[in-house]
Amino acid sequence: MKLATYKDGSRDGQLVVVARDLSIAHYASTIASRLQQVLDDWNFLAPQLQDLSDALNAGRARHAFPFDPRQCMAPLPRAGLWALADAYDAGLPAESAADPGLRLGAGHGLAGACDPVPALSEQQGIDFGAGLAVVTADIPQRASPEQALDGVRLVLLVNAVVLHADGLTAAQRQPHTAFGPVAVTLDELGDAWAQGRLQLPLQTHWNGRRVGMAEAGADMRWHFGELIAHLCATRPLAAGSIVGAGTVRNRGVEGKSRMEWPKGFHAIADKRTVEALRDGQAATGFLRFGDSLRIEMKDADGLSLFGAIEQEVVALAPPGVASARGRGHAAPAAQED
Amino acid sequence: MKLATYKDGSRDGQLVVVARDLSIAHYASTIASRLQQVLDDWNFLAPQLQDLSDALNAGRARHAFPFDPRQCMAPLPRAGLWALADAYDAGLPAESAADPGLRLGAGHGLAGACDPVPALSEQQGIDFGAGLAVVTADIPQRASPEQALDGVRLVLLVNAVVLHADGLTAAQRQPHTAFGPVAVTLDELGDAWAQGRLQLPLQTHWNGRRVGMAEAGADMRWHFGELIAHLCATRPLAAGSIVGAGTVRNRGVEGKSRMEWPKGFHAIADKRTVEALRDGQAATGFLRFGDSLRIEMKDADGLSLFGAIEQEVVALAPPGVASARGRGHAAPAAQED
Repeated sequence: MKLATYKDGSRDGQLVVVARDLSIAHYASTIASRLQQVLDDWNFLAPQLQDLSDALNAGRARHAFPFDPRQCMAPLPRAGLWALADAYDAGLPAESAADPGLRLGAGHGLAGACDPVPALSEQQGIDFGAGLAVVTADIPQRASPEQALDGVRLVLLVNAVVLHADGLTAAQRQPHTAFGPVAVTLDELGDAWAQGRLQLPLQTHWNGRRVGMAEAGADMRWHFGELIAHLCATRPLAAGSIVGAGTVRNRGVEGKSRMEWPKGFHAIADKRTVEALRDGQAATGFLRFGDSLRIEMKDADGLSLFGAIEQEVVALAPPGVASARGRGHAAPAAQED
Repeated sequence: MKLATYKDGSRDGQLVVVARDLSIAHYASTIASRLQQVLDDWNFLAPQLQDLSDALNAGRARHAFPFDPRQCMAPLPRAGLWALADAYDAGLPAESAADPGLRLGAGHGLAGACDPVPALSEQQGIDFGAGLAVVTADIPQRASPEQALDGVRLVLLVNAVVLHADGLTAAQRQPHTAFGPVAVTLDELGDAWAQGRLQLPLQTHWNGRRVGMAEAGADMRWHFGELIAHLCATRPLAAGSIVGAGTVRNRGVEGKSRMEWPKGFHAIADKRTVEALRDGQAATGFLRFGDSLRIEMKDADGLSLFGAIEQEVVALAPPGVASARGRGHAAPAAQED
């Protein structure tokens, strides 16, 4: 099933069940009002949501309404744990083969799919980071990767914003994370969910140009079970923990005269790394006010799995001044050469 | 007022108001069942809790019962953000003068004052870390340290367990954090709360011996407003964020023939650092199964402000094996020489 959280002015929003094709939705209020409730009591509540989902997909839900991603908060707006890895192995510098680079972040303030990216200054090196995450059940300390994988409840689409400017501390560099409109159970993914990875291409558009189309499963060195198990080596995880695999990237391929990265990039930093490798210097600038992002994943039939993350970078106004919105600038295309 | 969260089998427990002398308590259920609710809606709910607190302290609360710290969960068992700094300046190596060393951690699974410290192996370099933290209101992005200080709702006593063994990643090193039985509003602290610091000595006992009695306000280089403002430089904080100042430590003093640290230590790592400085080698070992800890802070009248953290280190049993409990070993005394 597909679950979303609608804005209602509260901090946790209202849980809705969304049809597979994302056309219509239905409030889950008679079953649970918040997704965390469902995660806390999954075995009791999930079957009830599944019944509602079945009715919705069969056109039998009586109070269905058109689904609007702009009304969405993050599917889980406050999480007890939000950890982001750097789990891809594209053969680029700064990747670690020794550990998955998991960093813990703020679990509150997780943003909705169409919320703006509020930024203080274009000088902060504002970057996007498109990828996938999972929401877990309770996972015991010292769970094996296989046990951990059994505890994956939902898959999410993620845009983890990073600030690259000098002078910021690690605690300041990840100010904003947005999630795709709907959270998806594994049965919705079919064969594309295999070996703890989602084997589908991710599409990222920057100011309307497609800049990334990497395979999300292909070069993921640590699968989601391994990422969860890494965290569980010294502690249990509670239901509703979100674990992200980091920016999706694929290995380069040998081109006519040099290495090429035909699948583009899902973070500007990756593009800059490739530029520095090939040309001795990074040329692409980071995000500017007014820039737009669109991140989406489609299944083999072309159906959008999570809905799209569609965000605009907006200037955070100084106190007392209305928000300034700049104009987007042209982004480089995905195709190298 | 003083607030605690009683265990009731649920993940969030039941909010109780506790008398100033920690003798009796009263369920807050007619006002709010969870502390997060109160933080989300402080201006409406806090005055009602204050009325209950006043009645309790005046002996007029009708359903009061004896307060038992062993029934306590963390005052806020799941937080949207848990960040721990290293804000003290004791002139020891590895302290940074450049930034407060804030690290984000897991907001879920925060432990109660008398919960055990579950550990896998004595070889993991298990350490305690006694100090203070604050729970915040909503704090806007780019809040000044003074604004941030105005958003401090509650003060907490903390034991942040750290694993020092080689081979663990940063995401694995902070497996367990416990909090004192009660969270305390600033009005309970009187003049001891000054300049964003709590100007009182902290007492730590290890296996019954007092090993630390450092002043918690004296050498805190960054005050709580500065710590919160550091996090808010790039993001807002949501109500219910917990920000810890790190292990309390004081500067050494010139002794007869060498530097001395008469106030002892609140983390074994600090003791080992001093040993390495003075003797060329760390001698004190880390925690063993069965070791006990007691962390407490008393006001000028000798009244326990937060109640005591009293924990035992227990071996996490391998699957299917009952928990093994070792015997405590003697801890070195606080007084050097």
